[in-house]
Amino acid sequence: MKTRLVIIGGSDAGISAALRAREIDREAKVTVVVADAFPNYSVCGLPFFLSGEVGDWHNLAHRTAEEITREGIELLLNHTARSIDPDSRTVLVIDKSGDSRQIAYDRLIIGTGAMPLQPAIAGLELPGVYPLRTMGDSFAVHRHLQEPSACSVVIIGGGYIGLEMADALTLRKLDVTLIEHSPTVLKTVDPILGRLAAAELEKHRVRIINSVGVEAIERTGERLTVHGLGGFYAEADLVLVSVGVTPQVALAQTAGVRLGVRDAIQVNRRMETSVPGIYAAGDCTVTWHRLLERDLYLPLGTTAHKQGRVAGENAVGGNCEFAGSLGTQVVKLFELAVARTGLRDDEACQAGFDPLTVEFESWDHKAYYPGAHRLHFLITGDKQSGRLLGAQLAGHRHAEVSKRIDIFATALFHSMTVEGMSDLDLSYTPPFSSPWDPVQMAAQAWSKARNTSAVSSSSFQSVS
Amino acid sequence: MKTRLVIIGGSDAGISAALRAREIDREAKVTVVVADAFPNYSVCGLPFFLSGEVGDWHNLAHRTAEEITREGIELLLNHTARSIDPDSRTVLVIDKSGDSRQIAYDRLIIGTGAMPLQPAIAGLELPGVYPLRTMGDSFAVHRHLQEPSACSVVIIGGGYIGLEMADALTLRKLDVTLIEHSPTVLKTVDPILGRLAAAELEKHRVRIINSVGVEAIERTGERLTVHGLGGFYAEADLVLVSVGVTPQVALAQTAGVRLGVRDAIQVNRRMETSVPGIYAAGDCTVTWHRLLERDLYLPLGTTAHKQGRVAGENAVGGNCEFAGSLGTQVVKLFELAVARTGLRDDEACQAGFDPLTVEFESWDHKAYYPGAHRLHFLITGDKQSGRLLGAQLAGHRHAEVSKRIDIFATALFHSMTVEGMSDLDLSYTPPFSSPWDPVQMAAQAWSKARNTSAVSSSSFQSVS
Repeated sequence: MKTRLVIIGGSDAGISAALRAREIDREAKVTVVVADAFPNYSVCGLPFFLSGEVGDWHNLAHRTAEEITREGIELLLNHTARSIDPDSRTVLVIDKSGDSRQIAYDRLIIGTGAMPLQPAIAGLELPGVYPLRTMGDSFAVHRHLQEPSACSVVIIGGGYIGLEMADALTLRKLDVTLIEHSPTVLKTVDPILGRLAAAELEKHRVRIINSVGVEAIERTGERLTVHGLGGFYAEADLVLVSVGVTPQVALAQTAGVRLGVRDAIQVNRRMETSVPGIYAAGDCTVTWHRLLERDLYLPLGTTAHKQGRVAGENAVGGNCEFAGSLGTQVVKLFELAVARTGLRDDEACQAGFDPLTVEFESWDHKAYYPGAHRLHFLITGDKQSGRLLGAQLAGHRHAEVSKRIDIFATALFHSMTVEGMSDLDLSYTPPFSSPWDPVQMAAQAWSKARNTSAVSSSSFQSVS
Repeated sequence: MKTRLVIIGGSDAGISAALRAREIDREAKVTVVVADAFPNYSVCGLPFFLSGEVGDWHNLAHRTAEEITREGIELLLNHTARSIDPDSRTVLVIDKSGDSRQIAYDRLIIGTGAMPLQPAIAGLELPGVYPLRTMGDSFAVHRHLQEPSACSVVIIGGGYIGLEMADALTLRKLDVTLIEHSPTVLKTVDPILGRLAAAELEKHRVRIINSVGVEAIERTGERLTVHGLGGFYAEADLVLVSVGVTPQVALAQTAGVRLGVRDAIQVNRRMETSVPGIYAAGDCTVTWHRLLERDLYLPLGTTAHKQGRVAGENAVGGNCEFAGSLGTQVVKLFELAVARTGLRDDEACQAGFDPLTVEFESWDHKAYYPGAHRLHFLITGDKQSGRLLGAQLAGHRHAEVSKRIDIFATALFHSMTVEGMSDLDLSYTPPFSSPWDPVQMAAQAWSKARNTSAVSSSSFQSVS
């Protein structure tokens, strides 16, 4: 009998699951319930639509609805799943007109994603104040930006999306003020690299306000005023709020699935929930961390694709496991790329390692060849075992920062030592690298520092 | 007692060995015998000096003589080692004025490098005909290029150096003709990518002649004529000959060391020769291939650095092994980067694997973001075991080709399967990649082709 696979959610995890299921089992009947009309959209691309770099928002789709249905996948667009009955194995869905119906499943995959965190700020409901998560949010911001009066913006939150929006709206000629309650922006990396990110933004006239908690937003005529602690205030025509996300699990809870860390859906590495026949994947679930060997809440598009693929394969009879995340990430801010993989020093400490983190700088390629850029590394390894624990890297967007962090990510995947990095046979020509690639020079600097750090109590070292 | 370490050769392997020895043993007395006045020069940088991109040749040094001596390393510049007496553990060296002396060693490292192959072509000794290996060769070409009459060049040999010189001398406004006796240039990669390299050169008006063997060079007045089989001829003001290199082992033979493949010095993975107390490293030695698990002659700057480091460490009492080469290489030709790692299909066949090679194309990053470039992959894996055997990649020089091939190199280092590539947690943001990096999409295309290739007898497949 054909497996009836129902997938709730048409973003990265859901579509990845659907495609993999159909690839493995050409007989499977796969239905994807999509809450809006935009399946498989690249949420990570929204800043580039709002910057004007992507002219037509339709291009943000990883695949069109036609490409998906051509794979034999049924799409129920503009349908919202309301509840799951695991006993009868049915999902209650409701369409735009309010009509509801029951859909039967043999296997169900929940990929309901995440929603923006609502910070404790008064005035979030005012016109001109926007979260940024869905296509709908983007359209609303896009419309507002087309008004001639839209000249300035305050962005609340200095994470990936906040910083990308600061870049995007500067390109769009707005005056941008970014408020981050911590002392540095981009807290996913250490402050040394966070300051490089801030410097790049400030070079392009973004005004960055650190260490200020926002309390309220008020409207005065056409303008909004953002009030913070200590009497801080800033005026703008728009306010964007991006302070993180939280898993969307209300539907899953109707099925009685167990929740885990940060109230995300608990899954095992086969992406099975606690309820038989029900899988989950993507931003609504916990994520197995390969190095920490435990679950975190770490929502990333790359992870959603991988988890979706595993869930899709297993739902039609496969037997595979999610290999785990290393938290590998990269962001582009104007001309700068900032990337990380594995653990920072403080994360490694908390996890019970004995870390040493070494700062290292080099050129991305032989300095005699034109166009060389500086690379700023932070290498974290375990002092006792010598094991590589993590790497952070910032440099020009043409300095292959993204794929250099991926060399570390691939090394971490295989539990390499820092010392072992020198054994890797990496490519070299003077326009692209050095005979020892900078990733190897950084690893060698770590080894030297480790050999001389027996007397030092600090786990953080700078190497010139 | 202090170890007296003598190193013969001041290029990549020799200096790498000296630095590592001093790093491991601060008491070691390290002497490097350098035949010319240019220790630690980047031979790979010579094309960029001749192109004019590097204004001052002094910048080609990885390190200055002062930087080397500051590490406590003695440099004997303009000294040539004439013979080795392993019984008395002495080396006979001769300086520029012809004075000779014996230097005693406890450990000796031979890093005499390679020299250009002399093809069977009449007229190689004519003025205006140049090999390209040493700093001296480059200075001679550089002087000739400054004559106003130097307007055209014939390059014999379509390998890395020949192609880089075609790029370099085109930048320098010369008319360039490149002659390669095989049907395609850049034979280190498959013809599909070789043709892309040729197209890039032709786009910049390099004239490429394939399948012509050169027989003779003749001088008529100020001009040179290159004659090939079948009546081919081409005229030029200069002729550059670059048809490969051969290990320089005459000195090593005075010590009675055993030679191996292609008459390179036989070493084990500790970089020991057959003679006690004598190590060798770099372009004069054989190279252990990590995947083939046997010795090849595969001279590369990256390998010379690694082998030198191992030899230097072991020579002062260390105990490490060369991890092996994967033949990872990259070349930049105008705007194109072409890279490879591991085995091509034919090499895998010869080694007894049952290879499948799949061609795959994609964008380097999300196509909606400006500046996306096409990437051309060839993925080779073993049909039976699914093991990754090699990857080849061509694309724009800003498409992170070099470090993308390094992700494959790191995967090969750990004997990953092609399928396993999808488990890697690689970085993503729309300006740099896709949620599945192109290296993973290429791997997935290979897996699909493998699943459907049971009926196909060909080991080469194109996937759209």
